[in-house]
Amino acid sequence: MNRSRGTLSELLAPVAAPLERMRAILAAQVAEDSAAVRDMTGHVERFHGKQLRGALVLLTGEATGNTTDEHAAVAAIVEMIHLATLVHDDILDGAEVRRRVACVNQRWNNQVAVLLGDFLYARAFALSTQLSSRLCSQLLAETTRVLCVGEIEQSTRRYDFDMSAVSYESIAAAKTASLYAAACELGARYPGGNVELGKRMASAGRNLGLAFQIIDDCLDLTASEDEIGKSVGTDVEDGKLTLPVLYTYGSADERTRAAMRDVYTRPDIEGRRARLFETVDLARGLARAEARAEELVEEALGWLAPLPPSPARTALESVFHFVVTRRQ
Amino acid sequence: MNRSRGTLSELLAPVAAPLERMRAILAAQVAEDSAAVRDMTGHVERFHGKQLRGALVLLTGEATGNTTDEHAAVAAIVEMIHLATLVHDDILDGAEVRRRVACVNQRWNNQVAVLLGDFLYARAFALSTQLSSRLCSQLLAETTRVLCVGEIEQSTRRYDFDMSAVSYESIAAAKTASLYAAACELGARYPGGNVELGKRMASAGRNLGLAFQIIDDCLDLTASEDEIGKSVGTDVEDGKLTLPVLYTYGSADERTRAAMRDVYTRPDIEGRRARLFETVDLARGLARAEARAEELVEEALGWLAPLPPSPARTALESVFHFVVTRRQ
Repeated sequence: MNRSRGTLSELLAPVAAPLERMRAILAAQVAEDSAAVRDMTGHVERFHGKQLRGALVLLTGEATGNTTDEHAAVAAIVEMIHLATLVHDDILDGAEVRRRVACVNQRWNNQVAVLLGDFLYARAFALSTQLSSRLCSQLLAETTRVLCVGEIEQSTRRYDFDMSAVSYESIAAAKTASLYAAACELGARYPGGNVELGKRMASAGRNLGLAFQIIDDCLDLTASEDEIGKSVGTDVEDGKLTLPVLYTYGSADERTRAAMRDVYTRPDIEGRRARLFETVDLARGLARAEARAEELVEEALGWLAPLPPSPARTALESVFHFVVTRRQ
Repeated sequence: MNRSRGTLSELLAPVAAPLERMRAILAAQVAEDSAAVRDMTGHVERFHGKQLRGALVLLTGEATGNTTDEHAAVAAIVEMIHLATLVHDDILDGAEVRRRVACVNQRWNNQVAVLLGDFLYARAFALSTQLSSRLCSQLLAETTRVLCVGEIEQSTRRYDFDMSAVSYESIAAAKTASLYAAACELGARYPGGNVELGKRMASAGRNLGLAFQIIDDCLDLTASEDEIGKSVGTDVEDGKLTLPVLYTYGSADERTRAAMRDVYTRPDIEGRRARLFETVDLARGLARAEARAEELVEEALGWLAPLPPSPARTALESVFHFVVTRRQ
């Protein structure tokens, strides 16, 4: 597989101008007269991160020749929904509150984190209702529902070592890949029409999102906090069974399996991620998960085949590669 | 002031049939293939409660002669947004988790409560994007934003004894009355047009919502859990300064004020509500708050004046009275 070269922002050069517009819209949307809200949204700017989902709206718009004046707003809406999910992901339960620091909910408490996420969702939907076409509202409201169901399913499968790789992918498709799919579909067909091309790009986005999630789960096991700029090992701490671990568990003997379960479930132990690596060799599970992510991205690249050559299409392909080669 | 007679469901007789349709839509909307989601939404049915906001959509529709086939769906959407706010109101912080029981977040933990609220919001917006007019999406997305800002403002004013009655009302107008206003405006003018009548009914709804919040705050001080079917004294426990307390504090001497502050803020004490009543006579503050609620309802009734006589208008007036005379 060709590997991407250069930083993400270099890859996004073909949509640099609309990305700036997207960021300006985002900034304007989260601005509020309320000082309390301003204080919080100011803090959340650190979450902006890669803005990959917004960029996908713009890149697929360009690569399909479908760009409109409203694409930057659609991209901002997609990013706001993503931000809302990030803020809500940080809501913690009693035990976890004591363990972690520096999320929104640590600075302001859980209640305010819930409200800030709700505010971001509301802003996103309010902006979408102002656009000329209802497609954005319709697609993103439905996507948000799917995304919530995926998260709920995931939370009920915690500590479920018998979960199949298929179940893992179906949950990841809902909770993560659905927003990637919506971003690519909206880029390709907003404000409407073009159903077939939309479906094709949605499939590419879904594959890409799934690959993104798998790599995210691998990095949660292998990366340092410095490398990825967020807490690591949280999946092991929270009992989330991810693909590399499920692969490893699936091919382990019963004694190793029991030891793995113990690492996840024994109360009040520190550093579960390090203990997991002491308990079992995860290398093959990790390699297999990464191979699966690469396979998904190859398939995603296949969906792009009918698009005419253009800098945007090349950039899109590079972003697809970036997702599986990233170390952050 | 005339007092309402009969139970709320008797008062709502003129819209009994569309209320049933609203409930059927609500049930269908929260139904999900996901067993995990079904389990949770089944539990949340206990929150359905008075369904006052949905009923207001239907009553104002009837009373203004504006009822359409879609009013029941609009009412269901308003109720889903209200339900989402209730579920998110139950998200607790570490200390509170230990104190309270039996909310959604107790049965499933905070994270699942956040997701269920998000799911209900998403369902509400998704349904609104399917209606023939965008007015419902537009008005309710904006209302949800206002509502979140109100809640955020409130959370930053905890333990603020110097808050004015004006600030209290402005926060309550945002966090509670905005949804009442939207319900009445949508009833009167969905799918569109009728801007003037819509504004008039929105004003009536806003006053009613404010009165509802003031009475809610009085009941949190005076009612028993059995009477109102939910935890009481939570405002005192959580440091929320409500109108009866602000009135009392405003006319107390400095020594009593210090004692009141102590009841709210001293760490690790039990039964703050009972202690507050031991510390200060709240009767006049409560009476003044109730008088303010009655004044607001009288004003709300004034907004109804131009409507032609009808069973729906009579029912609407009775519901307005119910809000200030209720003991639940």
